[in-house]
This record gives sequence, C-alpha cells and structure tokens, in this order.
Amino acid sequence: MKNTNDALKKITDDVVGSYDIHGGINHIEGCTLPSQNSVKEIIDTLMDIFFPGFFTSNEISGTDLKDFTLNKITALNDLLTNEIIKSLKFQHRHQQDSSDNIEETIAKKSAEESIFFLNKIPEIRKILKTDVEAFYDSDPAAASHEEVIVSYPGIFAIAVYRAAHELFNNKIPLIPRIMTEYAHTKTGIDIHPGANIGKYFFIDHGTGVVIGETSIIGERCRIYQGVTLGALKIEFNRDDDGKVIECNKRHPTLEDDVTIYSGATILGGKTILKKGTLIGGNAWVTSTTEAGDKVVFDTSNTQKVFKK
Amino acid sequence: MKNTNDALKKITDDVVGSYDIHGGINHIEGCTLPSQNSVKEIIDTLMDIFFPGFFTSNEISGTDLKDFTLNKITALNDLLTNEIIKSLKFQHRHQQDSSDNIEETIAKKSAEESIFFLNKIPEIRKILKTDVEAFYDSDPAAASHEEVIVSYPGIFAIAVYRAAHELFNNKIPLIPRIMTEYAHTKTGIDIHPGANIGKYFFIDHGTGVVIGETSIIGERCRIYQGVTLGALKIEFNRDDDGKVIECNKRHPTLEDDVTIYSGATILGGKTILKKGTLIGGNAWVTSTTEAGDKVVFDTSNTQKVFKK
Amino acid sequence: MKNTNDALKKITDDVVGSYDIHGGINHIEGCTLPSQNSVKEIIDTLMDIFFPGFFTSNEISGTDLKDFTLNKITALNDLLTNEIIKSLKFQHRHQQDSSDNIEETIAKKSAEESIFFLNKIPEIRKILKTDVEAFYDSDPAAASHEEVIVSYPGIFAIAVYRAAHELFNNKIPLIPRIMTEYAHTKTGIDIHPGANIGKYFFIDHGTGVVIGETSIIGERCRIYQGVTLGALKIEFNRDDDGKVIECNKRHPTLEDDVTIYSGATILGGKTILKKGTLIGGNAWVTSTTEAGDKVVFDTSNTQKVFKK
Repeated sequence: MKNTNDALKKITDDVVGSYDIHGGINHIEGCTLPSQNSVKEIIDTLMDIFFPGFFTSNEISGTDLKDFTLNKITALNDLLTNEIIKSLKFQHRHQQDSSDNIEETIAKKSAEESIFFLNKIPEIRKILKTDVEAFYDSDPAAASHEEVIVSYPGIFAIAVYRAAHELFNNKIPLIPRIMTEYAHTKTGIDIHPGANIGKYFFIDHGTGVVIGETSIIGERCRIYQGVTLGALKIEFNRDDDGKVIECNKRHPTLEDDVTIYSGATILGGKTILKKGTLIGGNAWVTSTTEAGDKVVFDTSNTQKVFKK
Repeated sequence: MKNTNDALKKITDDVVGSYDIHGGINHIEGCTLPSQNSVKEIIDTLMDIFFPGFFTSNEISGTDLKDFTLNKITALNDLLTNEIIKSLKFQHRHQQDSSDNIEETIAKKSAEESIFFLNKIPEIRKILKTDVEAFYDSDPAAASHEEVIVSYPGIFAIAVYRAAHELFNNKIPLIPRIMTEYAHTKTGIDIHPGANIGKYFFIDHGTGVVIGETSIIGERCRIYQGVTLGALKIEFNRDDDGKVIECNKRHPTLEDDVTIYSGATILGGKTILKKGTLIGGNAWVTSTTEAGDKVVFDTSNTQKVFKK
Repeated sequence: MKNTNDALKKITDDVVGSYDIHGGINHIEGCTLPSQNSVKEIIDTLMDIFFPGFFTSNEISGTDLKDFTLNKITALNDLLTNEIIKSLKFQHRHQQDSSDNIEETIAKKSAEESIFFLNKIPEIRKILKTDVEAFYDSDPAAASHEEVIVSYPGIFAIAVYRAAHELFNNKIPLIPRIMTEYAHTKTGIDIHPGANIGKYFFIDHGTGVVIGETSIIGERCRIYQGVTLGALKIEFNRDDDGKVIECNKRHPTLEDDVTIYSGATILGGKTILKKGTLIGGNAWVTSTTEAGDKVVFDTSNTQKVFKK
C-alpha cells in the first residue's frame, strides 16, 4: 500500500512535469475556456425555448407559458453571457493591459452580445418552422409536424446550427463550433456554423453529413445521409499570430431546389449546383452543373457481376 | 441591470408572440407528447431485462433474480403505459368527445398494449440470442458472447429495433420511432421500426447504416457500416388529414444469407437481393440479383492513378 | 389491478424461464463484467489528466495543480484496478481452483497493470501533443490548439484510442474495446484498440471512419470522414475454446504522409499505401500503391448527366 502511494506520487510528478514540457495542450491558470458541459446546457435551454413542451416532461399551459419563457430566457442570458466572457477573454489572452479595462470591456460586450442573440430567437423560430414543414413534405414516414420535432435528428442539428450561425456571424469565438460539434455528437450531422443555409432545409437520416464552413445553400434543398460538401484541396498558410492568410471560399454553392442523395460528394469553392440540380447517390461532383441537371452514378462501367 | 430586465421581458413577449404566429412547431396545452427522456428510461429498463447483469453495476444472484426481474418489469409497465397514453391522446387530438369516453378508452387500451408488449419479451430474447451468435460467428475480433453484448453497438441497435418493431406492429404512434432514433443517436445505425428483419442478423461497425421502413431482410444477413437500404425515388401524396395516400413498398428485399459490405447502396421497393447475394463495398444496386450473385465495384474503369 | 399484478408475475416467470433456456446472452452470478458506466468514468477521469482545465468547469491554478493531479490519478488507479479485476476474472471464468489463489493472483496483477498504465500517461500526452499540432496544421478552420482540444471529435477519439491501445498491448481483456466503443458512440469514429498508429495523426469530421484491428498507420497521416481501413474477406476458424485460429493481418498498412479523403475504402492485409500516397474521395483500393501515387475516382466513365 505504501508502495502504491509512492508510485502514484511519482506518476503525479511525471505527469505534472509533462504539463511543463508539453505545454500548449493543457490550459492552466489561463482563462477558463467555454466548457462542453456549459454549452450543452445552453443548447438544452434553447431547445426548450424553440420548441416549448416538446422536450420538458411537464405540460405547459397557456397561462404560465409567459413565466416559463421568461425563466428560460433569463437562464439562457446568464449562461450565454458567462460563456461569451470566457471565449472573449481567451481571444484576448495575449493582450497586455495593466488596467482593468479589458475585463470591463469584455463583460460589457458579452452582455450586449447575449441580448443581441436572444433578440434573434423569434426570427430563428420562423425559419425553423419552414424546416419542419420541409421535413413533413419530404418524408412519407413523417406522420405529423410534432413527430418531426420530437424524433428527427436532422431538425435538432439544423436548430443548433441556425443558433450557432448567429453567434458565428457576430464573431463570437469557440462557442458556435462547440455547439455544432455537440449536435454532431448527437446526430452524426456536422454543419460548420459558418455555412449559409436557406429556408425549408431538409436532411434525412443525416449520419455522416458534412457541410463545410464556406458552403452556401439556397432554399428548399434536400440532403441525405453521408453527403459531403467539402474542399477540393486543402492548402493554406498562417501568419505569425497563427491567423489563416487568404482562405477563400473552398466549399460548394447550392442554388435553390437542389437535392443530393446519400453518399454523394460535392467538392470545391467554385462548384455551383444550379437551381433544381439533382445529384444521385454516391455521385462525385467537382464542377458546376446547369439548372435542372440530373447527375447519376452509371453502374454499367463501374460494376461487375460474377454469377454463381 | 434594469435595462437588462426590460430587454429580457421584451424578448419574452416577442418569443411568446412567435408561438402564436408560428404555431405548429410548438406544443402547448395540448396533450404532452411522449418525451425523449421517458423513452430513454424505457430503453434502459428494457436492456436490463434483455441482458440482466450486463449494464447494471451490481452482481445479480440467482436467488434475487426473480425479484430483480419483477421490479424491472413492473417499472417498465408503468413507464410504457404512461407513454402509450400520451401517444394515443396525441393521435386522437382532433377528435371531439364531450364525455370522458376517450380518456377512459385510451387508458384501458394503453394498459392492454403494455401488457401485450411485455408478453413478447421472452420471444424477443430468443431472437436476440441468435443475433449475438451471428456477431460472434462473423467477427474474429469478438472473443466471447459477453463481449458482443457489452461492447458491440450493433447489438444495442438491433435490440432496440426488435422491441420497437413489436410496438410498431400494434400501431402505437410515435414511441417506436423515438426508440429507434435514440439507438441511432448512440450507434449511428438508423433502423426504421417498420422494417422486417429475420433471425441471426449481423451489423458490423454500423455508423451510417440506414434501413428504410418497408425493407424486408431474411435470416443470416450481414450488413457493414454505411450501407443504405433506401427508396429509389420519393414521391407521395397526402390526403386532407395529412395521411399518406398509397405509399407502397419503396425499400428493397434481402432474401436469406445476403451480405452487403461497407458503403453500398441498395435502392427500390422492387429490388430483391436473392438468396446468398454478396454486394461488394461502395456498390450501387437498383435492380434484382440472382441467387449467389457477387456484385463488385470494378476499379478498372473508375479510377485513375497519377504517378509521382 | 389484481389482474395486472398477476399478468406481471406471469411475465416475470416467463422471462426468468427464458434466462434458463437461452442462457449465454445473460450474465448472472458469474463475475460481473466491466460495465459501460465504469469505463465511461475512467475515460472522463483520464481526459481530465490528459487535458487539465479543458473539460472541468473550474479554473485550476498552478499551486493546486499537483493536488488536483494526484487526486485524479489516485481515483483513476482505483477505478482501473477494479475494472481490470473484473475483466481478468471473466477471462479465467472457466478455470477451476479450490484455493483462493486465482482471486489473489488476479488482484495483485490488476494493481500492477493499473500502475503500469498510469506510468505511460506522460508518454501518451507527448504523442497527443503531436496529434493536436497535426489538427491545427491541417485545418484552416482551427483557430488555436485550444479550439482543437475543446471542439474536435477526432482528438477525443484519438486520445481514447491511444490509452486503450496501451491496455490492449498488455492483453487486458474487454476494457480496451469498451473504451474505443464509447468514443465511437460519441464521435462516430471506430478505431480498434489493436491498430498501430504513428504520431501527428489527423482525422477530420470523422463520422463513419473505421480503422480495423490489424491496421498499421505511419506518421503524419490524414484521414477524412467515412474512410474504411478494412478486411478484404472475412474468413476464420475458432478452436474448441472459441479462440480464433490463425487470424493474420487482415487490414491495410499506411506508410508515412498518406492522406485519404472522405468515403474512400482501403481493404486487405497485404495492401500497402506507400509513403506520400494520396487517395481521393470515394476511391476503392485493394492493392499496394507506389510512393507518391495519387489515386482518384474518375467520373468520366462512372457518371451520366441528363439535361433538363
């Protein structure tokens, strides 16, 4: 037993020593980063506001709906302000300032950013309603709007993306990405918060979907499981501060009414799928289509059948 | 601070206003839907009954096994009855009835449906045993039946599907789909509760697997990660009540002993993979095969190699 | 109500009866297996040691870092020793020994194995640092090392794999696989603990990635979502004890600086991707490449475009 204690102390010394040597992968005595747990709490609260009564166990009556909503919004404001403070402190960690100016400035800006975001909620709900309609209209297995909300992972991923996108637009660091990665964990759908996605968006099944940072997606587009909207090649440079230099649009553009079936891969920042394009499953597209094109995988040259 | 409170109240009014305008995506003062949390609890309890001693932390001895099981089954009956009541109330939400008849009828039917389901458990366990055997027989990395149960995500997904399928067969709304979507979240395997799947079913790795609502799968079939059993085209109409009109079989049929390797896509309700068909990875199949066919991706026409 | 109780008792008898008949899928009065919950706790503690301050909510100061670390390491030692005891008891479950020898031997060995593993932590952290650098260098969307750790699922999956691999190397049963399957659930990335993976490893997005048990991966390799390193065919035999006979290397080898884009499938134990090979998205490779080869999907023979 004494031996074990000695061994554990020795190991502790070695591990703490490794924090000194390999600094950079640990985060000590700096500002605390926004944590995965706090961001999860933000998303849970947000979903209760987006779709009240769907995820909570208790019935909500019309009379206490206002109280319920005020409580949720107040809680969300506290959580979000707090995490924005952390993320901005992290962003300014290399800045030196003897006065308390930065602390104060960050606290003020964080409170403002949180309120700015909360003000966007009615607008986000308006777009989410169009998404729910698109799901209902696109899948015969959906028996009601309610079923879509309570059981389709695509709706969860899109709701989290639409919220994270607003924070991303206001240049809040870290939090938007942690939000969409939480949705990625739950749904297998990986939408970068920087992507621009129009109304009536439908993702079915969704596992393996990747939508890159500079993708642009029009209205009424439909995407199935395993579809990648990616970069054709990945080359970039960073300046001395680690900032990426000249990283232009590297992911594709989908105009309105584009449908992409499962497993298809669309690559490149200059690739445009024009209005109404339909891409068949497993297809591979790296150049612009014309409006109404159907691109399908041609099995006649690609597969062999061996008879028994 | 006063400003913040005013801002939060204003936001609350706007959000509550948006519930009025964009009604349909929120669920207030209606019947409460079955919630994701309650369904998760049902699945956890069910797994303790299917595989006692595997997921609970304490050892179970033969003497208290009966008490343990009775407790779990009683708990499951309460949980399930309660959620079925919610789902049936939701289904009948448009029906008007001044008397309490509907409430009573639903309560009675829900209790019966729950008992009906519980009676199926021994039969489901019998089939699950064949699935565990199929995993052990198909993967050299599996060192024991116990390892299969405790660490293979495919077994979890299949167990949840087999339970949800029984509820689906009895036309219980919403719950079966929420169950399989929970398994989808945990495993990346998306099996619609409506699919029909025979004994000795094996899914390896599983991420990205999609098995559509009207798929039929025979005995001793094996499916790998990223395989889609999907619809060839998705066209359907709804009647005035939103009910889907004439939506026939739109997903494929697999006869016995069919193997489909990773990333392959099989589409269409009339597509039949006859007995013993083997589909190679990344293949794309939209027509019926003959018994014993091997369909493989032919790289000679599909890939270019550029030398350095 | 009495009827319900009778029904539940009857069901309990049937279910308990099914434990007798279909024994083998349940685990009663044997040794308790390592549970998913305990392994999850081990991983959470480990991540707090690998990346202190990233996942915990409180700031850690330099002064209490040593106490924090000692506490975590002591807790990890207790958890791990306990689960190793379970896994070794399970492994020796068929052995008969009237004395207490086996119990004692297992307890002693488990304590030693736990300390052996803990001693590896500084070394694992050293390699993980190279992985974090590879992520930062490979993705223009990564703004800092910290962002990589807190939001990239690939880093989580690789960290869990590198820890599980050490236990696998020491032939600890069950636990390594449960560990990597937990990461699989969270990230969609399925790395078998038996795989050998060099420094500076990068996995982007990651959903659907499968890296088989006997894969060998060099340094500075990059893998994208949906990539499979798999077996070409799966044939094996077991001896009377269920042990697999002669199951040689069945998954591919990647030399240094290999990049494989999304959805590509590389199969076979004799397939070697030589240094600097680049495999394009959706490609299908079952034979050895030469150094510097680029293998790309050729759409000219594989796709048809139908004009409107």
